Amino acid sequence: MPQMASSTGSSWISLEGMGIRIGFVSRNDPDSLRLVEKLVKRFGPRAEIMVDRDVSKQIGLAGRPVEEMDADFIVSVGGDGTILRTIHRMKDPIPILGINMGTVGFLVDVEPTDAVKTLEHLLFGFEVDERTRLEISLDGEMLPPATNEVVLITASPAKLLDFQITVGGSLLERLRADGMIFATSTGSTAYAMSAGGPIVDPRVDAIVLVPVAPFKLSARPWVIPGDSEIKVELTLPGKEALVVIDGQNMRNVTDRDVITIGRSPIPARFVRASRDGFYEKVKTKLS
Amino acid sequence: MPQMASSTGSSWISLEGMGIRIGFVSRNDPDSLRLVEKLVKRFGPRAEIMVDRDVSKQIGLAGRPVEEMDADFIVSVGGDGTILRTIHRMKDPIPILGINMGTVGFLVDVEPTDAVKTLEHLLFGFEVDERTRLEISLDGEMLPPATNEVVLITASPAKLLDFQITVGGSLLERLRADGMIFATSTGSTAYAMSAGGPIVDPRVDAIVLVPVAPFKLSARPWVIPGDSEIKVELTLPGKEALVVIDGQNMRNVTDRDVITIGRSPIPARFVRASRDGFYEKVKTKLS
Amino acid sequence: MPQMASSTGSSWISLEGMGIRIGFVSRNDPDSLRLVEKLVKRFGPRAEIMVDRDVSKQIGLAGRPVEEMDADFIVSVGGDGTILRTIHRMKDPIPILGINMGTVGFLVDVEPTDAVKTLEHLLFGFEVDERTRLEISLDGEMLPPATNEVVLITASPAKLLDFQITVGGSLLERLRADGMIFATSTGSTAYAMSAGGPIVDPRVDAIVLVPVAPFKLSARPWVIPGDSEIKVELTLPGKEALVVIDGQNMRNVTDRDVITIGRSPIPARFVRASRDGFYEKVKTKLS
Amino acid sequence: MPQMASSTGSSWISLEGMGIRIGFVSRNDPDSLRLVEKLVKRFGPRAEIMVDRDVSKQIGLAGRPVEEMDADFIVSVGGDGTILRTIHRMKDPIPILGINMGTVGFLVDVEPTDAVKTLEHLLFGFEVDERTRLEISLDGEMLPPATNEVVLITASPAKLLDFQITVGGSLLERLRADGMIFATSTGSTAYAMSAGGPIVDPRVDAIVLVPVAPFKLSARPWVIPGDSEIKVELTLPGKEALVVIDGQNMRNVTDRDVITIGRSPIPARFVRASRDGFYEKVKTKLS
Repeated sequence: MPQMASSTGSSWISLEGMGIRIGFVSRNDPDSLRLVEKLVKRFGPRAEIMVDRDVSKQIGLAGRPVEEMDADFIVSVGGDGTILRTIHRMKDPIPILGINMGTVGFLVDVEPTDAVKTLEHLLFGFEVDERTRLEISLDGEMLPPATNEVVLITASPAKLLDFQITVGGSLLERLRADGMIFATSTGSTAYAMSAGGPIVDPRVDAIVLVPVAPFKLSARPWVIPGDSEIKVELTLPGKEALVVIDGQNMRNVTDRDVITIGRSPIPARFVRASRDGFYEKVKTKLS
Repeated sequence: MPQMASSTGSSWISLEGMGIRIGFVSRNDPDSLRLVEKLVKRFGPRAEIMVDRDVSKQIGLAGRPVEEMDADFIVSVGGDGTILRTIHRMKDPIPILGINMGTVGFLVDVEPTDAVKTLEHLLFGFEVDERTRLEISLDGEMLPPATNEVVLITASPAKLLDFQITVGGSLLERLRADGMIFATSTGSTAYAMSAGGPIVDPRVDAIVLVPVAPFKLSARPWVIPGDSEIKVELTLPGKEALVVIDGQNMRNVTDRDVITIGRSPIPARFVRASRDGFYEKVKTKLS
Repeated sequence: MPQMASSTGSSWISLEGMGIRIGFVSRNDPDSLRLVEKLVKRFGPRAEIMVDRDVSKQIGLAGRPVEEMDADFIVSVGGDGTILRTIHRMKDPIPILGINMGTVGFLVDVEPTDAVKTLEHLLFGFEVDERTRLEISLDGEMLPPATNEVVLITASPAKLLDFQITVGGSLLERLRADGMIFATSTGSTAYAMSAGGPIVDPRVDAIVLVPVAPFKLSARPWVIPGDSEIKVELTLPGKEALVVIDGQNMRNVTDRDVITIGRSPIPARFVRASRDGFYEKVKTKLS
Repeated sequence: MPQMASSTGSSWISLEGMGIRIGFVSRNDPDSLRLVEKLVKRFGPRAEIMVDRDVSKQIGLAGRPVEEMDADFIVSVGGDGTILRTIHRMKDPIPILGINMGTVGFLVDVEPTDAVKTLEHLLFGFEVDERTRLEISLDGEMLPPATNEVVLITASPAKLLDFQITVGGSLLERLRADGMIFATSTGSTAYAMSAGGPIVDPRVDAIVLVPVAPFKLSARPWVIPGDSEIKVELTLPGKEALVVIDGQNMRNVTDRDVITIGRSPIPARFVRASRDGFYEKVKTKLS
């Protein structure tokens, strides 16, 4: 799929006259697993079904790891975490449809009671939304791209970090803080918002930087171009920090490490299931 | 000049071998007027000089209104207000160079002591930065485009407004507040920032919405696409509000009026004079 | 009634065996006036009733101005504004009970459907909560004390004020801003909160200072002792500002005026009608 | 020393005609140790000197643990951390004078170049400021009182906590967040401020509650009475949290633990060395 200049793109995938293939992943709790079982039973006769190996053991089916699924889309039953984890496991993410099992999430679109009806519609085709991700490298090693955000955060809650951020070679900020959040527009309504960041429409091609508990009254959230090349370095020796990606992947870093952040060439993809636009979601989920 | 999709563009204007024409505008205070006089005397022999009529009377020169200047660029001596007022007077704004007479401004780039040296350089050519503006209509009537921001604000400090904002036909927010700021990226470091908005890199193609004293704990700043079509309406009768553009133009509105805001096809233009990038300016001027 | 050192005090007023006297004030809208009429009819036989002159004309009763009422308590039918206006009219405020006609208010305690039941209870006695007010003087002239807040605010929305605040003779802050809010603990959940102030338990003996749209990233809300002596002065000539008390009283000020703010010796008084404490109210009314 | 109702008290300690006893503690860095050595040499002839055992080894003197010092006051050479650690080691804290070795701190009052001159003055007597501390118990076990703040914070940066806070038996808030800060007025300019809390004058008798990255747009800082009895509990099993006191002491907690927080009967004590009041310090250190 071609790289897109903007933060979001969408395309229609027609499935008419074709054999549809659906993958399933799930959070490991009884309700979620039961819903997967029900959906597999219901749609098994009409689609080729693949079930993630972790899930398949629990419900007594043959499984296949997400990494090897060649599905048209993947149904994720659980919360935003389930989706983010699944995306992290795929090199070129297959479109995901999130069924919401009780958590407040911006990525899960469908309530469990609407799951069957929604899937019925998708058998004929569906709209795919692409969302730009962040590409992160640690001393040259590529880490999994971030759909929501990458966070640099102190490893010991009592100790502030000292770090500096350059963008395209220019110093953006030198800061003492618990940490710093680098979020996509998509992630602006997740952790970045808790730390005081603005709500960014996912169509805005931008990266949002939000300091976490900065020891400096003038520190503010930043919104910079989506194609910025960001470099982050700890400026004091002896402090331990963590790099956390989408709340899923974690790595230790010290002042000898260099973190770079930029736009990932490969977006995350979501099956569009609800008619609600972004503003509607914000009103429903956040206020 | 062609319309640009992004919030900022730049181009090089070469003046080699051509007769250069420089316009002058000024804040009405002795220091500013004196500097204009000095610059006119210094550069008169080498350039065609036009002086704004308000200023010319004070310093005893023939004047010409800004509206009729066909200069290569205009030198504005004063503060951000002087620049914004000058832009409002031009249909298709000529590039402006701001000499900073003591105010903290993001639009004024050059210190008075550097004025002569800077102008010397510009005689051979200069870089022009284009900055997207907001187009505002009130019941269909076009108001002057905003370089920094357009604000909807209560006309009586004791009374909150009730209003709603739709973007592209979708309801973004219904709010009780003193008002709402709609800022360009350029304006994000002006009034929008005082009201709690994020710092937006001028290269981000976006409009920033910042509520002023919202009576709702969950109200937050928004960043939406630069090509959004915004509609604002008061939802309760009997309240008087003001629409203020760049702190310069003011109009009364009531619940019978409809305000629309979008991207102006004609940008503001600035002569690039300092090597400092945006991040450098933020550090120097804001912390 | 003795002055109280703390921000809040309470005392029980027993009415057993005594002829009770109830005053009524109302917002000027049909629903509110109808409710006053109903309550007057209902409790007329059992209490001495006084009706504010403005209201009495509308519902065809003999009236008496609030200023001359010698009631045990006053029933205010309307919103927070109705209560604040009534308090402003009394030299030594009689306890007020607020019936909430549709506005979100922290001072109105009783829903209209509970009005009769609540008044029945009060015939035998009631708890009175005292709330500290702010005493404001303008060039030595005493203005009405503030129950919620006194605000210094720019008279022209386009122009920032420059002002300085000293507390007990020490400079607290010099600021460019739209204005500054000086709130009681009681007022911390009103305008001060919209401008970003903290929620202050009314039992905390404090004054809250919240800047309105400060042009300075490091400006923050302050909480200072309740017995502080505050002096506010505009520091630049030529700017027009307003002093607004409880959103009800307004005065023009210039750089030649001195505003002083301190604790008023005479508190506001409220009839305690709901069992809900302050935290319960915040949860119900603000989230 | 008697317990004080207010957040701050002060008293004058006269030393005229008495043998003065001075304790020394230090941060473990060459500059700090060198300054201790210099001060010990200088004041040894005129005062009884006690040096903390950790320090004494480094500079070749006989030492005595802080816990056993019966000094008139203790000189702490280092930063706020050095002071906080020293206070934690004393049951009934001796007054401390902080010499500031390069960190931005609100508790360190004296610059190294002024150390000798300041100590000369103190030989005759000094003013002591008392600052209320927070008493913290974990399942009934008393932890060291907090001079600045006690923080409940997630032990794994990727996972939000779910917790509830009751004050005097009333539910104040139920929250999903990284954590919550409970600060004294003294601590309002430390970690609480980084997380967005107000500046609280140390004379205000209050506890400040500031949520850290709350996943709820309406969450706000609270200011509650200084004598409040606070109870904090995690509401979801399986999450690990930390209780961190003054950035010095750390304990693991789970949903089976109950944390209570209230006013400590024993205050922290500081030797008043600078004439600058609190507002002056805020201006110097924070903007």
